[in-house]
Amino acid sequence: MEKDIALLKEITLFKDLPVEKIQKILNIMRKVVYSENETIMREGDSGDTMYIILEGTVEVVKSLVIGDLEDEDVGKNKVFTRLDGKNHHAVFGEIALLEELKRTATIKAITNCVLYEIRRDDFIKLTEDDHELGYHILLSLARIVSARLRKADEETVKLTTALSIILQQT
Amino acid sequence: MEKDIALLKEITLFKDLPVEKIQKILNIMRKVVYSENETIMREGDSGDTMYIILEGTVEVVKSLVIGDLEDEDVGKNKVFTRLDGKNHHAVFGEIALLEELKRTATIKAITNCVLYEIRRDDFIKLTEDDHELGYHILLSLARIVSARLRKADEETVKLTTALSIILQQT
Repeated sequence: MEKDIALLKEITLFKDLPVEKIQKILNIMRKVVYSENETIMREGDSGDTMYIILEGTVEVVKSLVIGDLEDEDVGKNKVFTRLDGKNHHAVFGEIALLEELKRTATIKAITNCVLYEIRRDDFIKLTEDDHELGYHILLSLARIVSARLRKADEETVKLTTALSIILQQT
Repeated sequence: MEKDIALLKEITLFKDLPVEKIQKILNIMRKVVYSENETIMREGDSGDTMYIILEGTVEVVKSLVIGDLEDEDVGKNKVFTRLDGKNHHAVFGEIALLEELKRTATIKAITNCVLYEIRRDDFIKLTEDDHELGYHILLSLARIVSARLRKADEETVKLTTALSIILQQT
């Protein structure tokens, strides 16, 4: 139990919380196991769970081009990144805690994995009961999402710049 | 005062709040006036204020290409959108409530404007004092930012698709 509390305190989403609040989060978490090559979530599916990696490595794959292009090379996915349980215990799917949304990436276990799972219903119930806890987690979560938005905006500028340069040359 | 409360209840960020909570938000808001053509915020500057448009129209301008390209046409900005005080009273700069970040767009008054301004320090103080209020606003804010992230991701896919098609043809 103490080990679990120490683990959760390493995670950005929970890092500022006191032990008694972390304890409450532990109560709504469930340990789940995935085998090597098993798909944990699929891009486009609706999702209501967030995951914390305890052990193992997952691969995050995101479609970078619209699916139904004629040429196979254009239509293929691109691997974005890998996440694992080392260092700060990567978290994924956390936007599902906010609302029912389609998953924006496919995530596959590339080794055997042990994960903690939190369901939105349990999360909302917990935070509605304890607004102080809800406030602190949502502040972290909003900051995480805003950092991703900044990064996505930067990507857009890079891509538009590349397009401009190419269109000028043709 | 009642008019102000009705106005705030139209805004997504505050729509689920009871009157006594809206009252608290009104207490930290300040009315500010900008003249036609005046710049309200500049892309790249750091910001700590959110705005609600009471009257008037603003123009949101965002750089779409990296600034220092040689060709003037490539380096120029592109107008994204206009916001005004009609319908649901547009809000901008709300990510500044979360943390010290650079503004991601330049916003200019294109008519005389009356705005409500909320400063991050006042917002954080208010929500630290009233976690229930903080919880509800942050849930809305996190959802707004997550909707923008989804839109930005879709833009990236469109741009990458366009790039792939062009690169295949050249």
